[in-house]
Amino acid sequence: MTDVTGPTVEDTTAWWSTSITRIAPGEIDLRGYPIEQLIGKLGFVGAIWLLTKGSLPTPAQSRLLEAAMVASVDHGPQAPSIASARMAATCGVGINGAIANGVNVLGDTHGGAGQQCVELLCAIVDTARHDGRPVTEVAAETVAEHRARKAYLPGFGHRFHPRDPRRDVLLTLVREAVDTGEVAGEHLRAALAVEAALARGSRKPPMNVDGITAVVYAELGVEPELARGYFVLARSVGILAHAWEESNSGRRIKGPLPPPLLADYTGEPTRDFEG
Amino acid sequence: MTDVTGPTVEDTTAWWSTSITRIAPGEIDLRGYPIEQLIGKLGFVGAIWLLTKGSLPTPAQSRLLEAAMVASVDHGPQAPSIASARMAATCGVGINGAIANGVNVLGDTHGGAGQQCVELLCAIVDTARHDGRPVTEVAAETVAEHRARKAYLPGFGHRFHPRDPRRDVLLTLVREAVDTGEVAGEHLRAALAVEAALARGSRKPPMNVDGITAVVYAELGVEPELARGYFVLARSVGILAHAWEESNSGRRIKGPLPPPLLADYTGEPTRDFEG
Amino acid sequence: MTDVTGPTVEDTTAWWSTSITRIAPGEIDLRGYPIEQLIGKLGFVGAIWLLTKGSLPTPAQSRLLEAAMVASVDHGPQAPSIASARMAATCGVGINGAIANGVNVLGDTHGGAGQQCVELLCAIVDTARHDGRPVTEVAAETVAEHRARKAYLPGFGHRFHPRDPRRDVLLTLVREAVDTGEVAGEHLRAALAVEAALARGSRKPPMNVDGITAVVYAELGVEPELARGYFVLARSVGILAHAWEESNSGRRIKGPLPPPLLADYTGEPTRDFEG
Amino acid sequence: MTDVTGPTVEDTTAWWSTSITRIAPGEIDLRGYPIEQLIGKLGFVGAIWLLTKGSLPTPAQSRLLEAAMVASVDHGPQAPSIASARMAATCGVGINGAIANGVNVLGDTHGGAGQQCVELLCAIVDTARHDGRPVTEVAAETVAEHRARKAYLPGFGHRFHPRDPRRDVLLTLVREAVDTGEVAGEHLRAALAVEAALARGSRKPPMNVDGITAVVYAELGVEPELARGYFVLARSVGILAHAWEESNSGRRIKGPLPPPLLADYTGEPTRDFEG
Repeated sequence: MTDVTGPTVEDTTAWWSTSITRIAPGEIDLRGYPIEQLIGKLGFVGAIWLLTKGSLPTPAQSRLLEAAMVASVDHGPQAPSIASARMAATCGVGINGAIANGVNVLGDTHGGAGQQCVELLCAIVDTARHDGRPVTEVAAETVAEHRARKAYLPGFGHRFHPRDPRRDVLLTLVREAVDTGEVAGEHLRAALAVEAALARGSRKPPMNVDGITAVVYAELGVEPELARGYFVLARSVGILAHAWEESNSGRRIKGPLPPPLLADYTGEPTRDFEG
Repeated sequence: MTDVTGPTVEDTTAWWSTSITRIAPGEIDLRGYPIEQLIGKLGFVGAIWLLTKGSLPTPAQSRLLEAAMVASVDHGPQAPSIASARMAATCGVGINGAIANGVNVLGDTHGGAGQQCVELLCAIVDTARHDGRPVTEVAAETVAEHRARKAYLPGFGHRFHPRDPRRDVLLTLVREAVDTGEVAGEHLRAALAVEAALARGSRKPPMNVDGITAVVYAELGVEPELARGYFVLARSVGILAHAWEESNSGRRIKGPLPPPLLADYTGEPTRDFEG
Repeated sequence: MTDVTGPTVEDTTAWWSTSITRIAPGEIDLRGYPIEQLIGKLGFVGAIWLLTKGSLPTPAQSRLLEAAMVASVDHGPQAPSIASARMAATCGVGINGAIANGVNVLGDTHGGAGQQCVELLCAIVDTARHDGRPVTEVAAETVAEHRARKAYLPGFGHRFHPRDPRRDVLLTLVREAVDTGEVAGEHLRAALAVEAALARGSRKPPMNVDGITAVVYAELGVEPELARGYFVLARSVGILAHAWEESNSGRRIKGPLPPPLLADYTGEPTRDFEG
Repeated sequence: MTDVTGPTVEDTTAWWSTSITRIAPGEIDLRGYPIEQLIGKLGFVGAIWLLTKGSLPTPAQSRLLEAAMVASVDHGPQAPSIASARMAATCGVGINGAIANGVNVLGDTHGGAGQQCVELLCAIVDTARHDGRPVTEVAAETVAEHRARKAYLPGFGHRFHPRDPRRDVLLTLVREAVDTGEVAGEHLRAALAVEAALARGSRKPPMNVDGITAVVYAELGVEPELARGYFVLARSVGILAHAWEESNSGRRIKGPLPPPLLADYTGEPTRDFEG
């Protein structure tokens, strides 16, 4: 029971307020646009932009976001996100549950490099602007600092691909958008300067998919956390595809090893309990 | 330790086999297509189709899938999926965790009506084909049976919208595809026959978004469970948008009621524990 | 904005009403008992019973629930629930996220056999009571019916253990409680009758851990779905232990196969995209 | 296909190795103890300790862990973890899915204060030991530092309880264990010194449940992340109880507001899409 002079029912509806979607009987507006005007006209990627950013995308925004998302859909069942979804699909939860388990592990380590790279590029560009220095100089300094503390630079190098096949094609798309003036190109320059500075070391890690999609997102003004959100949406496609493939296999309770293989036991030998 | 005459390492890599994505150093193929050929050329919805169905979509498949997914992106924070994601976004988990919690509750009751309606429409069409009878007749019979046992027909009627604003526009798109011969139209006829039979009752529930997207998916030959998967991908957009909006609010540990409101307590009065 | 003549703020606090816990500034009652009276006096298993069943457990309820839960804590990393949690622990989500992923896959197939066996035993006992027939007769009939449609009987047989080591010890505990009159024994008799009927076939599957814990729960009057809940709590212990062990390994992004092993690719050979 | 001179099947079983549980046909050992020796003899809390810490608990370890866990089982449906589980229980996912959603939001902000407080207390004690200074002095210094940067001290103060009813009773239990020499008491002294230093300010936040359970865990030598794990296990009880209560309500698709209430819409007014 609550104090009658206290909060009102309006406080409870305000607590859940949103600027994304308005509903009324027979009406649904997304960011103000009646949904029936959007269906069949606005693309799915356009709807992603509209809902998350609040306005309709420009052609460059649509094109670059679409390309970055296609680049991120899957990397195979070795990834724990995919393996988790495939196992879940055999355990008697709906496909929603399998997707949830895949998405949930796209955490700071497994799904966060893109977000971290957007942060890195934004920090370089902001410092350069603030100090009135070229981004290349700030980028080189950043690399030197990371090297000095042996820290990992998110978005560069790949433990499997010596050269990530998604880099060049996305890079070309960003460059074209810079040439046409659709995006400013500062974050691209920052990323290329980081890559160049890294290339002067022994490992020479080129930009990976997290790095080049971070360039796309940073050029589009997408906030770092939202960039992770876009990656999650994109990888959800691979997660769904794998869950669905596994679901069709008819396997039940799939573990990591095919029976009759067992995990090694490395613990205490059998001993008696003297309870 | 495992028996040396037992399973081999090849059994373990076969256990995780997939036909979706092939990777090799510097190479990623999606369903056989090198990813660098797809980025910037294939749309995101095309990639969804390619990964889940195994082949490139026809223009009709792309167009209808895109429309159905845009129709499904959001319905506001009243939905438990959205509310769950918004609350999660204030609890110190990454945005991946917030999306996972939203997706996870798209279960049989909250996210399953579309899948169930695809099953219903397929059953009607299959029975009609098998028995050599018109789908309208089988549909009317199905409605009568459901009515007799007071069962709910998934995809028809909405507890909020007297008429779902997503129905007509999607219906028009499917009809156009039937007119051009891009889809066969049997499942559309089944759904319209169900709707017509229901309209002869007192409640007259029209097709809702689950029903009309089920028509799209059934006409495209999408299996019922995969149809739920597509719905999950689509609604993930709204889930992300709401999680991101809440994340920007700066709230911490958001519960269902604004403080200082408390849930009513309806249990035992205070009593002593005689342990 | 909502209609002023419509719902009140009291409707919103009633919407979230509970009979489990009452809080007031400086006060927390669990099912009516001040929490400071319970801490250090009531055992953890007692608290589980109190919160879920609403009253303090009898000694038999505590003892049997505790034994059933200890029996269910773990079965090693081959299980997808455990493997999922271990992989999650390497992906940069908190240990809560790792536990959530493990718990989430305890679905109908991986974690539901106990619940289904409680339903089975209750159905046998209810039918026997209703028809005034011995449970052994109804149990034998049930087995015959299942055999006739080649259906699986939840709670009997194990794909790894010819004889489940958890069966005998729990069975003894239930028998002792029957002997002292603490539980009625009808569900135990039903389970033994099912086991005996199965033993007259070729496979002779004895009661497994799901079966014998189902006997415990059914004898205690625990509803089938709540029985699954208890199993989830128990297995959460193993899930936590494995997540924590993996977390201590320092591995990052653990997939199902040790690098450089890759899942087999069984899909289309590389082909050109003619976009 | 993998290189025949590469990894062996033994590498894959080693990849999943564990020291927690050994299984063989008919045998299950937990940390070396045959499970049939533990069932009915070892308590559930003892099993939690055994699995996570690797050895049987001493009486003090059992007693204190049990008390800390009972203290943490629930705080009502205002918490997002509980509200999430209750909503999930109405969406057609199993009770495992409802528990997973509740557990998943016990993140750094909602479930991490205990872990952070263990870290704080350990840091104070370690510094004091290292510098050969009294913990009270180091604690006072720590408080001063936090105050200077207006930082929050995890484990002290509660936004609802002026005085947390769980504090005194747990404090008494820890003191008794110090008196008997069962625990050393250094972390207790650190926590009391923090509380005393805070009491010299204007807000005077006393130790809350996160603080006093952190004292328990730190005194028991439980690592900070594992302390969060224990909290997750304990709160899972409340999560289950609430999910089960909601499940029994028969509600379907429960959102945060009772219908017909709607969240406020604060976005763009309706506008036309000029696609």
